[in-house]
Parts: sequence; C-alpha cells; structure tokens
Amino acid sequence: MKAELLQLMKNRKSIRKYKKDSIPLEKVYEILEAGRYAPSGANMQPWIYIIVTDDRLKEKIREEAEKVERKYHEKASDQLRKWFKELKITPEKSFLTDTPVLIVVAGSTKAPYWRQSTWISIAYILLSIENQNLGTLTYTPKEMRFLNKLLDIPDDYCPVVILPIGVPAERPPPEACARKPLEQIVHLNKYSREKIG
Amino acid sequence: MKAELLQLMKNRKSIRKYKKDSIPLEKVYEILEAGRYAPSGANMQPWIYIIVTDDRLKEKIREEAEKVERKYHEKASDQLRKWFKELKITPEKSFLTDTPVLIVVAGSTKAPYWRQSTWISIAYILLSIENQNLGTLTYTPKEMRFLNKLLDIPDDYCPVVILPIGVPAERPPPEACARKPLEQIVHLNKYSREKIG
Repeated sequence: MKAELLQLMKNRKSIRKYKKDSIPLEKVYEILEAGRYAPSGANMQPWIYIIVTDDRLKEKIREEAEKVERKYHEKASDQLRKWFKELKITPEKSFLTDTPVLIVVAGSTKAPYWRQSTWISIAYILLSIENQNLGTLTYTPKEMRFLNKLLDIPDDYCPVVILPIGVPAERPPPEACARKPLEQIVHLNKYSREKIG
Repeated sequence: MKAELLQLMKNRKSIRKYKKDSIPLEKVYEILEAGRYAPSGANMQPWIYIIVTDDRLKEKIREEAEKVERKYHEKASDQLRKWFKELKITPEKSFLTDTPVLIVVAGSTKAPYWRQSTWISIAYILLSIENQNLGTLTYTPKEMRFLNKLLDIPDDYCPVVILPIGVPAERPPPEACARKPLEQIVHLNKYSREKIG
C-alpha cells in the first residue's frame, strides 16, 4: 500500500461545507469498522459511536452546540480569532444539520487511557471517511455534556467529538491547511533549536 | 485504496518483543512524514518528534521509565493486573533498549486542543509504521516529564508517548487483541441497551 497511505492522509482536509446528499447506513457501518481496530489501553476499547440521522435530533444538537460556541467565541484568544477569521468560522454550525449523518464518539471514563485510545479510534475513522471519498471534520465544542442528555448517553461515557459525515461542497483554501516542514518538527536525540535536514 | 486501509489497521498489533535489526534514519523520516498531515486545532500542528537512536540515551530513558513502572504496577487495579498477567507485562521495558529507534512525541501545551491533535498525529504514525512492515506500541508511562530533562525538551512541551520502532520478533496472542463486534459499540440515534444489527 506504501505511497497510497500518505496520499490519503494528505488528501484529507477538514470540510465545513457539505452537499445535502444522503449516505446509506451500510456505508456508515463500513466507515466505523475502522475505528474498532485502534489500539487501546489494556485493549479495553473504551469508545462508543452514536450514529445520528434523525433530523430533529440533529437540530437540537446544533442548537445546543451553537449556544456553547457563542460563549467560546466571545472569550477566544487573539490567535484563535485570527484563525476563525481566516477560515470564516463563526458560532454558526450549519454542518450539523446539512450533513446526513453525525457520529458522536464517546469514551468510557472508567477505562485506562480512555481519552488517548478514543482519539486514535477517531483518527482511524477520519481516514476511513476519506477512503470513502466523503468529508468530515473533528468538531469539538468546548462543552459536550449536553450530548449525554440529548442522546441518553450514560454519565460514565464522555463525548469527545462530533464527526459530521457528508459529501464535500467546498474544500478549505490550501494556505489554511499548510503544514510545517518535517525538519521543523523533528529533532535527533535531543531537542535542539538547530534542526536536522 | 478501499479494502487495503482496513486490512492495514487490522494487521497492526502492539509489539512488545523486537529483533535487534537496525533501521535507516531515512526510513524513520519517511514514517514521520505521515504524522505531519494530521488535522489539528486551528492548524497549529502542536506536535514535535524526537528521534532517539543514541544507546546511552535509550538506556537512561529505560531506567527512568522502569522507575515509574514499578510504582504504577504496585498501585494497579485488579482489572489492570489481570491484563498485565495475560500479556506478561512487567515493569521491565526491554523494548526501550532493544529497538534501534525510539520516537518521543510531545505536544505544545499552548496550542488549542493540543492533546487531541497530537494523538491523531500519533495514530497516523502508527499506521505509517505498519505500512513499512515495522512494529511499535504506544508506550505511555504514567509520568513522562523525565523526558523533558533527558532530551532537553522545553517545559511548554508535554511528552505524551514513546514509540519504539523495530522489527517484530513476536506478535501478541490473538485473544489479547480481540475486538468487540461493531453492534456492541454502535448505537443509532440514541444510546440504547438494545443494539443494532
């Protein structure tokens, strides 16, 4: 597979605008298969995936998320505000109702390393979505406990991300997804201001 | 690429026993390329990768890690002890000196969502290692700040994992890596004790 894996990773971009095209539930299951194979602390597999397709539920999620966003945007740092502006990010989260499917990923807080394990599982799902030529983004409102209430998730599971899944309508501008060169982030044997390369 | 991605994810297992074969530094750079393409909060790319190949440094890391492990094993829960026994996991971490390369991944604690972003980057690297037919595991001693001291990592970077990279000498028993069936972890629209399927 070699080069194709890196290509898949490079192609994947966080999508904020989606078409309204529907996605068969079978395809969603296929996507989520990937998440199961993540490694986890003591192989506890602490993750659960709630597939949300119900329009009323999606609207309620959007409503609660936007409440959280309005508070967050008011208090955002200058650095974040600059980035919001560059990507035209506002408290309005239309992707939560535009996409046909939302995946809420939660982790069992009783498992060792549940957060780290769950994020590896999420990364696997991100790549799996790209592999199906669909789009998503890791949407993490600052406060997510409202999802426990809306989706009947037990209190010992903590929601960590909402992944909207849909057909991309617009890709982000390349300059907003530029990556640091490898020599800027890699260090040999000790951290050093002098870089390798 | 479709089916190959899932196959890669299924094939990847956490490796605890390695051969002493060396790995060219070029291959390590190739592996780390993958990590750069992870999404991150505000595209801050908060991760750094320290490649450790120096034998004395690896020995010191092992020494400090085993100190942490001895404390951790003493205080481990019954559930964890059972899993340790099943996988013959002890405070001894020979893979830290047996593998030719350790990658220490740290995250800039000043970036938004730095921990989540860094774990996605780690997941990308795990798959990239498997894609090179090499082995690793996500080694996370409970206390990792000793790495700041040993590797001159600035205090505003927090080490989150050590990834030993090497040629697998032994794969874990299949029963130790079994996964829950999808219907046990997927819920439709609301969390429910009655599963889909």
